[in-house]
This record gives sequence, structure tokens and C-alpha cells, in this order.
Amino acid sequence: MPRYADSIQALIDRLNRLPGIGPKSAERLAFHLIRISDDEREQLVRALSNVKHNVKKCSVCGQLSGGSPCGICANDQRDHGQICVVAETQDLAAIERTSEFHGVYHVLGGVLNPIAGVTGEDLNVGALVTRVQKATPKITEVIFGLNPDVEGETTILYLTKLLRPLNVKLTRLARGLPLGANLEYADEVTLGDALKGRRTL
Amino acid sequence: MPRYADSIQALIDRLNRLPGIGPKSAERLAFHLIRISDDEREQLVRALSNVKHNVKKCSVCGQLSGGSPCGICANDQRDHGQICVVAETQDLAAIERTSEFHGVYHVLGGVLNPIAGVTGEDLNVGALVTRVQKATPKITEVIFGLNPDVEGETTILYLTKLLRPLNVKLTRLARGLPLGANLEYADEVTLGDALKGRRTL
Repeated sequence: MPRYADSIQALIDRLNRLPGIGPKSAERLAFHLIRISDDEREQLVRALSNVKHNVKKCSVCGQLSGGSPCGICANDQRDHGQICVVAETQDLAAIERTSEFHGVYHVLGGVLNPIAGVTGEDLNVGALVTRVQKATPKITEVIFGLNPDVEGETTILYLTKLLRPLNVKLTRLARGLPLGANLEYADEVTLGDALKGRRTL
Repeated sequence: MPRYADSIQALIDRLNRLPGIGPKSAERLAFHLIRISDDEREQLVRALSNVKHNVKKCSVCGQLSGGSPCGICANDQRDHGQICVVAETQDLAAIERTSEFHGVYHVLGGVLNPIAGVTGEDLNVGALVTRVQKATPKITEVIFGLNPDVEGETTILYLTKLLRPLNVKLTRLARGLPLGANLEYADEVTLGDALKGRRTL
């Protein structure tokens, strides 16, 4: 298979390593990046380089942010007694977009995944335990905001075991039918959970 | 909607401008790019910057390549009397991968698209006409290797009009059933073309 010019092929190969970008998309992206103006390309390069220097992990909650402590941890208006545990910074952003949560967060940096070799030691778990033990004022509730899949559930079980002795209220996000769902096509677990968690009107 | 740290948001916005990358993919890519090692990121930045300096448009055929003239145009072993006209460098690569064509190419840099405002003047058409008129040895055949869609067909009609007076054989890629196709689901035009172009065994 004939290769493109070396510098084109190098770019294609690099793009192909990114998640969700296959060989064909990488090719299309590469040629797009060749065609755009020098200025456009330069701005992408700058954004890439800047992200390296300007992103910090918050020393309190572990989210990727512009500063440490992050804007949420440094905010007096938020309820520092309520911690929502999420896997990644993106999940934190998703919850923030709902405007329904006024507490603070703890970003694990992943979930337990024995197959991929991710254990509790790879996650930001020790800091969570210390936080729950030592925080003043006291932590009143830890909400597990993890994906309702095998890894998420395993992680919830693991964290529950660690945090249960600390006498703190542990909760998890409700499972149920998402907006726009169709009863007919809902899986039994979701529908069962929706029934168990039914609300009085 | 709360934004990420400025440098993260800047990267997301830049990635979101790329073709085929929506807001969610951009977010996922950005966080991937934050997580990877400095070295990995540096290599992507370098590939992006290099492509700017090292890619040249071949002065003969117009393909994006490492040099000008490109490897194909400079190759004596190829049949310089046969020109395959393609829209983009990627299409050239696709034809090269078949190993069935031993002539040279002409890359238009796009196809006619009146809706998007792409006219004959925006394409590498003048050079094609000059090439067919003046080349020694004489050009014996021009093969249109363009996509069988509205824009491709329009471009073939337009080029046919320009090249017909030059007394050169004009051909186009066969239309027919692709490998693995299902007669039942083939559209009528394709099936009709496959019938018209049937081959004696």
C-alpha cells in the first residue's frame, strides 16, 4: 500500500492514535488540516501546547481545571459538606450543567476495572477517605455520581466498603427511565428500578 | 452552562471545528489529549507543524506530496500518456492502492459544486487542458476517476466539454455492483449500469 508523503503519513498516524478516530477519519482530518490556513493550524497547535502548561489537577477534588484549588473547591457559596464522587472531570461538568447540585466534588480519575488492570490504588480514593475523615465542617453526604454500568457499580461497592465505617450518609444517583424513553423498549433492570423508585405525586 | 478551564475549552472549541468532530467528541478528545504523556502530545504538535512546512503541491499533477514534481510524475516507469483525473490526493491514494493503474494523475483539488460556489476556476482545470494540449509524448487517454455522485457527474460533463476538441480518448470508471453487494438492495441506476456494462466470460 503506497504511503502518502512522510509528513502527511506521520500526521495521519498520530491522529489515528486518538480515541474514536479510525484510519479513514484520520486521513480525512489530516487533509483538512493541510488545507486550512496557517493561522487556523497555528491556533490548534497553540491550544494543544497551552493545555499542557495551563491545566492543573485541583489538590482538593482532583478535577482538571485552570487552578488549584479549583473554582468549585474555592467557592464559599457551595455546600462543602456534600461531596459528589465522579469518575472524570467531564462527568463533573455534566452534573454542573444540571444546576441541581450545590455541593462539591471528588474526581476519581477513572473507575475500577480489573480487566484493564485499574485497581483502587490507581484512583484518587485515598484522598477521598482522608477528606471524609478530616474535613471541617463534617461531610454529611457522599453521592456516587458514577455510570450505572459494571465498572461503576463495582466502584460504588468498593467505595461503600471503605466509607461505611466513617459514619457518613452514602447515596447514589437514581436509576429510572430517561426523558423520552419508551416503556416498550426499556430493559427490565431499568424498568424495575423505575418502579422501585416511583415517586408520590 | 459552566465552561471548563479556559485552556481546556479553547482546545475543545478548536477540535470541534474539525470535520466530523462534534461537541461531545471534541470534549472526549480534549481530555484524552490532556491525559496522554507530554511526549505523545509533543509528537502530535510536531506532526501538525511539520505538515505545514513539508507538504508541497506537485507542479505537474497538483497532488499534495513531499516534493514537486511528486514521486509519480517523476517516475519514468509510469505511462505518462495516461492521465487519471481525481478530485483529491486521497482519491489518488485509493487508486494507487489497487495497483491496477500505471499512468499518471491530475488532482483537481475538488469538484464542481454550484451550491457551495465551486466553479471551474477554483479547480486545477486550466493546467489539465494545457497538459493534454502540450504534453510530449502525447496524452492518449484521460480517465475520469471521480465519485459517481451529482458533483462528480457534473464535473465529468464539464471536463468532457473542454477536452473533447483536443482529440483525446476520454473514459470514466465503470459503474456496477461493488464486491459483496446484494442484488435485492442495489439501486436501479447501479443495477442498470451493471447490466449495460456486463462482461463476457
